[in-house]
Amino acid sequence: MTSATSASVQALLWRDAALQLLDQRLLPAQERYLEARDAGTVARAIADMVVRGAPAIGIAAAYGMVLAARAGADLAAAEAQLAASRPTAVNLHWALARLGRLWRAGADAERLEAEAVRMHAEDLAANRAMGRLGASLIKPGSSVLTHCNTGALATGGHGTALGVIRSAWQEGRLAAVYHTETRPWLQGARLTAWELAREEIPAQMIADGAGAHLMKVRRIDWVIVGADRIAANGDTANKIGTYQLAVAARAHGVRFMVVAPASTFDLQLAGGEAIPIEERDAGELTAFGASAVAPAGTRVYNPVFDVTPAALIDAIVCERGVIEKPDAARVAEVIGRTS
Amino acid sequence: MTSATSASVQALLWRDAALQLLDQRLLPAQERYLEARDAGTVARAIADMVVRGAPAIGIAAAYGMVLAARAGADLAAAEAQLAASRPTAVNLHWALARLGRLWRAGADAERLEAEAVRMHAEDLAANRAMGRLGASLIKPGSSVLTHCNTGALATGGHGTALGVIRSAWQEGRLAAVYHTETRPWLQGARLTAWELAREEIPAQMIADGAGAHLMKVRRIDWVIVGADRIAANGDTANKIGTYQLAVAARAHGVRFMVVAPASTFDLQLAGGEAIPIEERDAGELTAFGASAVAPAGTRVYNPVFDVTPAALIDAIVCERGVIEKPDAARVAEVIGRTS
Repeated sequence: MTSATSASVQALLWRDAALQLLDQRLLPAQERYLEARDAGTVARAIADMVVRGAPAIGIAAAYGMVLAARAGADLAAAEAQLAASRPTAVNLHWALARLGRLWRAGADAERLEAEAVRMHAEDLAANRAMGRLGASLIKPGSSVLTHCNTGALATGGHGTALGVIRSAWQEGRLAAVYHTETRPWLQGARLTAWELAREEIPAQMIADGAGAHLMKVRRIDWVIVGADRIAANGDTANKIGTYQLAVAARAHGVRFMVVAPASTFDLQLAGGEAIPIEERDAGELTAFGASAVAPAGTRVYNPVFDVTPAALIDAIVCERGVIEKPDAARVAEVIGRTS
Repeated sequence: MTSATSASVQALLWRDAALQLLDQRLLPAQERYLEARDAGTVARAIADMVVRGAPAIGIAAAYGMVLAARAGADLAAAEAQLAASRPTAVNLHWALARLGRLWRAGADAERLEAEAVRMHAEDLAANRAMGRLGASLIKPGSSVLTHCNTGALATGGHGTALGVIRSAWQEGRLAAVYHTETRPWLQGARLTAWELAREEIPAQMIADGAGAHLMKVRRIDWVIVGADRIAANGDTANKIGTYQLAVAARAHGVRFMVVAPASTFDLQLAGGEAIPIEERDAGELTAFGASAVAPAGTRVYNPVFDVTPAALIDAIVCERGVIEKPDAARVAEVIGRTS
């Protein structure tokens, strides 16, 4: 299934036995695809954020395994290299495990390729399902705030949190859409603004520090975000700033929705405190392109994810259903249990 | 009174009947002073943020009046132009009223100049007093987080919130200092990091969205901020992002200190909802220097201040004393009443 809109923004294209990755470091100034023909190039592209967003990273890693298999490369080495590319998003490990199981069971490159293509298509279908489910929670006339980029650029298409906003917009439910700029990498300014403009969804951008003020002075009904990893009890790791918005939302009676496919759940982890939080380079905060914005020697604490406890989340929307007021029992009902 | 440290960073210098303003738009890359010889240049310098920080703006405006008086210009026009340069900080109006009263009572340019110089010196002395008072609230071994720039660059010298941090550091009370980058103008990255480096106070910078996460994963004892206007009940307008940090601080049991001279109080206003909140240009969020970071046409909501209700503030430190758990009665005790 392909719609005009999903065709218009594609973070990943699998074509002629190569992976084309829209280089998200260059957006919105340039739309250029980077071609990956081996797993190492895919791993570097994930680490360098050519491709980002938990579901998109998982799909890219799956195609990385396919490239290794087609080249007759060492698949265990490719798997390890891809697994090490980013630490927080669990979809990466989920995708690698799915391809790895097949390979260990003797599947050839063609079979792995079919599985990666299926995974990619399933992600798009899951996003459309989540879009419908999430939109159904939003009353007509609502205003929403989102953080980071969770659209077609972050997924196999349509998007998770931004997919819900797209679906809700198409259904005429939204009075206003706000998004943060999302420091340090500016996913909101560079990517979400770009996707919303392409979709012709009117929106306004705020500085990351302005979330609580916005909730106080304008009516906001929902904060809607994606996830990089969700523990068995519903605690959710997502882009840095998410937790601060969740705290502000609770203080203002604004509801808080997490939208993520089942592959984002890590049922091995009882709670969010065990989720590894990636810290990235100081340069993301001290420089802008080639320009220094802080004096030489400025020390930085740059965690790029944080954990929002389940108690601050009103609903987790996944393709299998809506988990309201998530806790371990409700997550198990919809997602299942490990062991 | 001049110390080595206050001599090292001076936002404003009055010299040879001209006002020298350290151009804060160029920091930390360049240290260049802009010379103002008329009130219009001072008003433009305030509007364009050559000089910023509520107390520094007040002092600059006072010197603007002196320049108008020395040139034999229309002082009522100069006063109106200076008053219109920025809407939120009340120190500007306080300083203009102080010079205006003298002028209306027949004071000549020399008398106005002496008053502006006195005001400048009083601000430095007030900051040193606030530094001592604020530091006395901080237990040895504490960790603090500050927002925006409230140091010598924002004042007549030493600083308000950053002055408390300087004093507490000198007294050996601080285990760790964190500061935000402070979007959109990056006062934290560009100015606070620069001042702290000059003072050789080790610090770490975080993204604005990371405040609540920092409070959760590391011990923070105090959030310490300045103010642009404080209403009679203690509600405090300050840089956008302050309110969000105050909400997060309360949720984490972190104490919240506002540091501002008596001139920052606007006793005409019963509560913070009447404080005018400046909205600045979309370009502050959509571009970085000459580079666009968001697609053309991106709409922006860019309030650059917010209001923190008194109920979230543990202490307001001013040169006249500490107002703990501020409310109208406690503010009146220390600051007085209007009418």
